[in-house]
Amino acid sequence: MSLGHAVRRAVQINRHGAALRLEGGDVSWGQFEERVARLAGAMQGLGIRAGDRVAILALNSHRYLEFFFGAAWLGAVFVPINIRLADEEIEHWLGDSGSSLLFVDAAFADRIPPLRPRLPALAHIVYLDDGAVPHGFTAYEPWLAAASGTADVGRTGDDLAALFYTGGTTGRSKGVMLTQRNLAANAYNVIPELGFDRATHWLHAGPMFHIADGVATFAITMVGGTHSFVPRFDPVAVMKAVQEQGVTHTLMVPTMINLLVNHPDLGSYRLGGLRSVLYGASPMPAAVITKALELLPACRFTQAYGQTEASPVLTLLHHEDHQVAGPLAHRLAAAGQSVLGVEIAILDPEDQPVALGEVGEICARGENVMPGYWNQPEQTAAALRSGWLHTGDGGRMDADGYVYVVDRVKDMIVTGGENVYSAEVENALYRHPAVAECAVVGIPHDTWGEAVHAIVRLKPGQRASSEDLLAHCKPLLANFKQPRSIDLREDPLPVSGAGKILKTELRKPFWAGRSRAVN
Amino acid sequence: MSLGHAVRRAVQINRHGAALRLEGGDVSWGQFEERVARLAGAMQGLGIRAGDRVAILALNSHRYLEFFFGAAWLGAVFVPINIRLADEEIEHWLGDSGSSLLFVDAAFADRIPPLRPRLPALAHIVYLDDGAVPHGFTAYEPWLAAASGTADVGRTGDDLAALFYTGGTTGRSKGVMLTQRNLAANAYNVIPELGFDRATHWLHAGPMFHIADGVATFAITMVGGTHSFVPRFDPVAVMKAVQEQGVTHTLMVPTMINLLVNHPDLGSYRLGGLRSVLYGASPMPAAVITKALELLPACRFTQAYGQTEASPVLTLLHHEDHQVAGPLAHRLAAAGQSVLGVEIAILDPEDQPVALGEVGEICARGENVMPGYWNQPEQTAAALRSGWLHTGDGGRMDADGYVYVVDRVKDMIVTGGENVYSAEVENALYRHPAVAECAVVGIPHDTWGEAVHAIVRLKPGQRASSEDLLAHCKPLLANFKQPRSIDLREDPLPVSGAGKILKTELRKPFWAGRSRAVN
Repeated sequence: MSLGHAVRRAVQINRHGAALRLEGGDVSWGQFEERVARLAGAMQGLGIRAGDRVAILALNSHRYLEFFFGAAWLGAVFVPINIRLADEEIEHWLGDSGSSLLFVDAAFADRIPPLRPRLPALAHIVYLDDGAVPHGFTAYEPWLAAASGTADVGRTGDDLAALFYTGGTTGRSKGVMLTQRNLAANAYNVIPELGFDRATHWLHAGPMFHIADGVATFAITMVGGTHSFVPRFDPVAVMKAVQEQGVTHTLMVPTMINLLVNHPDLGSYRLGGLRSVLYGASPMPAAVITKALELLPACRFTQAYGQTEASPVLTLLHHEDHQVAGPLAHRLAAAGQSVLGVEIAILDPEDQPVALGEVGEICARGENVMPGYWNQPEQTAAALRSGWLHTGDGGRMDADGYVYVVDRVKDMIVTGGENVYSAEVENALYRHPAVAECAVVGIPHDTWGEAVHAIVRLKPGQRASSEDLLAHCKPLLANFKQPRSIDLREDPLPVSGAGKILKTELRKPFWAGRSRAVN
Repeated sequence: MSLGHAVRRAVQINRHGAALRLEGGDVSWGQFEERVARLAGAMQGLGIRAGDRVAILALNSHRYLEFFFGAAWLGAVFVPINIRLADEEIEHWLGDSGSSLLFVDAAFADRIPPLRPRLPALAHIVYLDDGAVPHGFTAYEPWLAAASGTADVGRTGDDLAALFYTGGTTGRSKGVMLTQRNLAANAYNVIPELGFDRATHWLHAGPMFHIADGVATFAITMVGGTHSFVPRFDPVAVMKAVQEQGVTHTLMVPTMINLLVNHPDLGSYRLGGLRSVLYGASPMPAAVITKALELLPACRFTQAYGQTEASPVLTLLHHEDHQVAGPLAHRLAAAGQSVLGVEIAILDPEDQPVALGEVGEICARGENVMPGYWNQPEQTAAALRSGWLHTGDGGRMDADGYVYVVDRVKDMIVTGGENVYSAEVENALYRHPAVAECAVVGIPHDTWGEAVHAIVRLKPGQRASSEDLLAHCKPLLANFKQPRSIDLREDPLPVSGAGKILKTELRKPFWAGRSRAVN
């Protein structure tokens, strides 16, 4: 199974059907294969060989799609670069991967020349856009037109296909190695569950550098469906694409869905053709899904949970489980059930399964799991110990196989040999009517290693003492999970750009001069 | 990806749902896993270890399903035996595979004792049925009840899972080695195309020893659907299962469908729940499909083409392509398009692709293709040469990727360096109104190697000379494909038990004392 195979099968079953729907007209699967083979030939002409790394830094476009399949056709390893990076991070990704060829578009072209002196391996830069070409760059279309197509070199199975770097809020980002089989396995896993077939028309609305959109890059190709593109997310562009291009499926994060369903012009577009929205990255707020279900009644919403190391999908929460009321409404807080081909286990720190319903680390097995991190044997061994991918997320599974993500493992507190998931304690505190926001962290303790400590801000005008809150928690939590100390604050807790409470910051003053196992 | 994983995922997503619907009630996926683990433990208690071969000779039942998954759980290699074999063939399959354990039911129990003296490896026989147990056999249920469950040994990927022996009308049958990944890949390939999900309720109506029914054995388990069983095909049992048990999907060969749709009691059963019938082995006669579509309007018919060596599906002809009239009616003669995950190529004798629409050998690649034949390195190398599975079937592919099977390669005639597919010549002859039946074979020729020779029987009361028939073929066939001689007979041509004309017999007198490359 290989990405080259995916293209060839799309051609076999849908040669004259639309691979790409562009402003200028459709590109058939037969034509797409020709361009992919030509792109592989053009790269070969620059001296690129199987196993070489080739990177891309660009907004969404059909050329981005060609890049993925052209690189795979030649057996080169593709490295999609996050468009939100600082210069230093771009340099790290290009340097760490040893990329010798970079594709860049007009939006990012001026970022590269200052970095080049420190990137000796980077021999060639191809400019993806039409129009004036920056000095020293090769113009994409003429270069492609001058090349001859090559045959697929036939990389397959465990051959390395891609390096997808993880964001990495702590430490430097690592290159996740994904094989041909990993990417194909993820596609196989989602195709039946998302109902992809040759009538599926996918809009690349989320960024194509991200493996979340990669779900469609490979799966939609494998079934011979159609791809459309918007350069970057914009609610109007999405609505136009649905109305005018016939888009049926797309992926958005809840924030994007929120922007879409609250857009003032929503009512003036015909959006009945949109049959499915996949979303991920965070659970769906009830208010957003309620509005979305009301405004887009023909559309199915599916939540995906996963991570780059799993190519990326681990679980799916299907449309039927998006119930805002009734006995199954709690499932809206779940990440769903294991996708076809993935086995989930909730493991304790010794990698033994916890009892059903107990909290542990969410771990996974399947052919979609990476072989490791690029040039990081220790981190690879840690992530894949005992034959399971360790997600770093704490969670539990109910008797029906629904997975609930409760916490990051690094926010877990180890006190007197017991594990306490901070989210569990926070949930107990949030049930007190006076609590506006709270965070629970582990602080050093001479006897227990760590002690459970809570930082709480009360709602304006509400009153509650630390003792009141401790008494409130008493019947809700096992003894070892009880907060040992509570710090009442008036200022809002520090948050990240994405709005998440920064526990690292909250822990810092307690750990000055000491070291915590994970931070 | 492994068969053990398939069971565990079914449990994760559908623990309390019905794995098996039996006369005595449902068995849940949670209970099924327990029985599978116990069966593995019971086999382990007999000394069976990973890699050992364990065979089964039985009619369909839920215990047959347990056998597959129990063996896989222990890492043993399962060997399902054709229930239509002669004693000598049973002995060959058991002996060649070196099976040390055999499961047998009441229908076949008396076949085994006479063979045992010549099967030194066969140490244990388990009797699947309830009631009196033949001497020297172990009773299944008490043996299972006394055992403890074991953990899945974790065989996966390229580990050998099964030996499925091919029928082999010429020569001795060979054991097709299928790995865990092969069986999983086939399941992955068909799940989206056949729409299998946890609501799918499969009736094992065709024989479970055959890999055709194996499609459902593994795929239905992977999606957490439900299995039902009839001991052997019977139209009334099938209609009852649909009406009373809620069966939604099944597999039948065209002959079975014909029996079903022509059954006098068809009208007295409620069959509206039957949503999908998969069929294979031979194309669907237009008269049968017309009647089936009329009598079962809610049911989708899908043709599968493949072979054991491909675990087994290569192409599917979907319901929409079953048109008995109109411009696409010719597709009813096709075997369909390559299934997800399979690449088809039509290759010439040098393993080069022929031009689109030309006839060559149907070849395939994909993770469903066997690693080889058990202890047959030469036959393995021949079947898998150039990295393609050679099906032995001649065929062509049209521009839309539809594959048409035209001939067995061994019936291909090589004359003056040109390949002539006998079916093409036969089709031309059949267009003459006087021809009742015909067969075209290669006969020895000193200059050309082989010459095209036709054997023809005319319809009663019709007249046509050899010269008439040659003149008829002239405008229909390229010169090198024209018959060089025609033999008019009055007797019907010799046929096999399955009704196929025996070309081997027809060729024999011409080749006495000479050798043909394939026969």
